[in-house]
Amino acid sequence: MPKLSFWYDFASTYSYLSAMRIETLAADRGIRIEWHPFLLGPIFKKQGWDTSPFNLNRAKGAYMWRDMERQCVSLGLPFVRPIPFPQNSLPAARIAYHGRRETWIGAFTRAVYHMQFALGEDISNPELLAALLLELGAPAKDIMHDIESAEVKIGLRAEVAEAERLGIFGAPSFVTEHGELFWGNDRLDEALDAAFMRVG
Amino acid sequence: MPKLSFWYDFASTYSYLSAMRIETLAADRGIRIEWHPFLLGPIFKKQGWDTSPFNLNRAKGAYMWRDMERQCVSLGLPFVRPIPFPQNSLPAARIAYHGRRETWIGAFTRAVYHMQFALGEDISNPELLAALLLELGAPAKDIMHDIESAEVKIGLRAEVAEAERLGIFGAPSFVTEHGELFWGNDRLDEALDAAFMRVG
Repeated sequence: MPKLSFWYDFASTYSYLSAMRIETLAADRGIRIEWHPFLLGPIFKKQGWDTSPFNLNRAKGAYMWRDMERQCVSLGLPFVRPIPFPQNSLPAARIAYHGRRETWIGAFTRAVYHMQFALGEDISNPELLAALLLELGAPAKDIMHDIESAEVKIGLRAEVAEAERLGIFGAPSFVTEHGELFWGNDRLDEALDAAFMRVG
Repeated sequence: MPKLSFWYDFASTYSYLSAMRIETLAADRGIRIEWHPFLLGPIFKKQGWDTSPFNLNRAKGAYMWRDMERQCVSLGLPFVRPIPFPQNSLPAARIAYHGRRETWIGAFTRAVYHMQFALGEDISNPELLAALLLELGAPAKDIMHDIESAEVKIGLRAEVAEAERLGIFGAPSFVTEHGELFWGNDRLDEALDAAFMRVG
């Protein structure tokens, strides 16, 4: 079964558009998704950015919000603008990293994005995150304990380093088994197509 | 007849992908293109950038070249990487600004992009630009003289200011008669759709 790696940051607006659709689209084509929650913050910091590029460039930021509204209408997804933006995605990323190979990872990922971009909730709230896990039948209490471990913290940091090694500079990003990188929700379909074959 | 404004910089890679297709796509839908050659340099400078963002961010730059290769294959367009990048687009922009309402503007725009991205020519070369104009039946000698006038220089500068007023921060960009902005070759189809109606 061909595989596609999906790299996403929970605070990333365009990652929302892919996260809500990727598991279904991949299943339709017989592709397995490898979930890679990670953090863009450390990668942005190396560019000298202390926040989202959409906050640093006012015109680009204003455009992005309008574009997100249009894209969500077109994809049939609800959309509210998170305040503040970007949200602190670290706790959700640690949970998703810890559970990246569990059966609930897709549903958990979608639930976090839905909380943020449909309901306007604060996704750094540990009670909210624990409630989502419980709803999915996951051992919430154990997981909320485990994510404070050095193993999870170091493991997530290693994922950021691996993202950089793969040439990733933004999210969502998709990487095929042959190392072909695709960036942005606009490339989701091409990435799925490429998952079947060596491109180029 | 609905109208769509097309804002492009001759040095912009993704503008090439739109410029080669937009006139045909618009004609098929009964849309008139308003040509807006402009310069991204002054807009990038205000962000503190002294070159293309693809040169400032190595990972993003490496990705862009690979993505351009793939997009050109997919669109059936030839592609060579211009050296140096970005090219000096000022002389071509002045010619295109001067001739923005002439019948040859579409053909001239495509010819400049073709010279750069298919043949690897230096598009700041005045002899090349004059030869292209001649081939299109335009009064090349007069035009090459006119583009040194204050009228053309100031007019092109005013176009950059107008681009900023419209919220433009990159190229290609498309603006409908209702002021709806679309950025990137990936939004060309949506922009053409929106040219018919008020979106949102």
